[in-house]
Amino acid sequence: MAIPEVVIERLPEYARVLSQFESRGREVVSSQEIGDALRRPGRTSAAQVRKDLSYFGRFGKQGRGYNVRKLLEELRRILGLNRQWRMALVGTGRLGMAILGYEGFEPQGFRIIHAFDSDPAMAGNDAGGLRVHSTDEIEEVLAKSPVDIGIVAVPAEMAQGVIDRLVQCGIRAILNYAPITARVPEGVELKPIDPVLHLQSMTYHLKARAGSFG
Amino acid sequence: MAIPEVVIERLPEYARVLSQFESRGREVVSSQEIGDALRRPGRTSAAQVRKDLSYFGRFGKQGRGYNVRKLLEELRRILGLNRQWRMALVGTGRLGMAILGYEGFEPQGFRIIHAFDSDPAMAGNDAGGLRVHSTDEIEEVLAKSPVDIGIVAVPAEMAQGVIDRLVQCGIRAILNYAPITARVPEGVELKPIDPVLHLQSMTYHLKARAGSFG
Repeated sequence: MAIPEVVIERLPEYARVLSQFESRGREVVSSQEIGDALRRPGRTSAAQVRKDLSYFGRFGKQGRGYNVRKLLEELRRILGLNRQWRMALVGTGRLGMAILGYEGFEPQGFRIIHAFDSDPAMAGNDAGGLRVHSTDEIEEVLAKSPVDIGIVAVPAEMAQGVIDRLVQCGIRAILNYAPITARVPEGVELKPIDPVLHLQSMTYHLKARAGSFG
Repeated sequence: MAIPEVVIERLPEYARVLSQFESRGREVVSSQEIGDALRRPGRTSAAQVRKDLSYFGRFGKQGRGYNVRKLLEELRRILGLNRQWRMALVGTGRLGMAILGYEGFEPQGFRIIHAFDSDPAMAGNDAGGLRVHSTDEIEEVLAKSPVDIGIVAVPAEMAQGVIDRLVQCGIRAILNYAPITARVPEGVELKPIDPVLHLQSMTYHLKARAGSFG
């Protein structure tokens, strides 16, 4: 059964709120409580939670809620969160350095093991404990020491070229911070991290609320 | 008619690819071409494009495609992209500085006009041309000079408190970079920018492709 991408994108959020429930010592939660914990206006109702989780089998019993530990284990297994994922970062400018310094990756099993930059002055430097390689060396380095995921933090005009090369190296998942609508072949996952797209969907609501829609 | 949030979230992407078509001198495009330009596996088909855009009236003629300039104008009007939006940034650490230095905001009408940090050593400093205020001054500064949007780039443990204060100050749209599932009251938009959630939905696919699902 094909699971809609929007459902898959919500699963990590379910896993996160379930670990919050677990750390507070809760053993059972209702779909209502999960929905409330995620609550963003108009997004995730109790019915939505039940429907999303039903794609993956029967975790809850009617009227009795979900077993927190079991559901969390199952979600982690489904999402592949019980293993380490190796990542390569391309671009060690201000944004790249903020990504290297981000403390949220490692506790979740995501580790940046290579860093590349096109600026010859950066090559050989230490960036958050990693030696920066020249982007010329992407193919050579990844052939010797492959990664699962690429992170692209280069200027817009370089981004598609870098993405194409990472795909050529066999990378099948790319997190793209460059402000372009990048293209990848079938079978490669690409997620844009683009604050402007998020802002633009919020201004729709700000504008609608100001009464100027229509 | 209530427009699904997933549709609203795709509209900025439509606007972006349409401006790419416009800059290449294209006058008319088909839904197929729009879908292809956005193409991420399993996401946006021509039929999806037609359905999404149909919420906002009839922009295209059957079999003749969409007028690029008119559709783009309409999308910009709908999304509120033809005006300036003022933003306040809370948190001027490594991530906050990368946000201040991000060049994608201003060309799209988003301008950071205030920056706050809880570290007394930062207050009064210059950050990307702005004077950093103490977070103690959030209420005072925003009362004198309000903003439309708040950007939260503080550590996880401080984030909900900062978000609550921004909401109290009347802010109705928040971009949250802190790795928490934050809560906001009804009527306030909150978009999380969380690379880990994106990574975790990609590893679902990596894992499924490796044949280890199930």
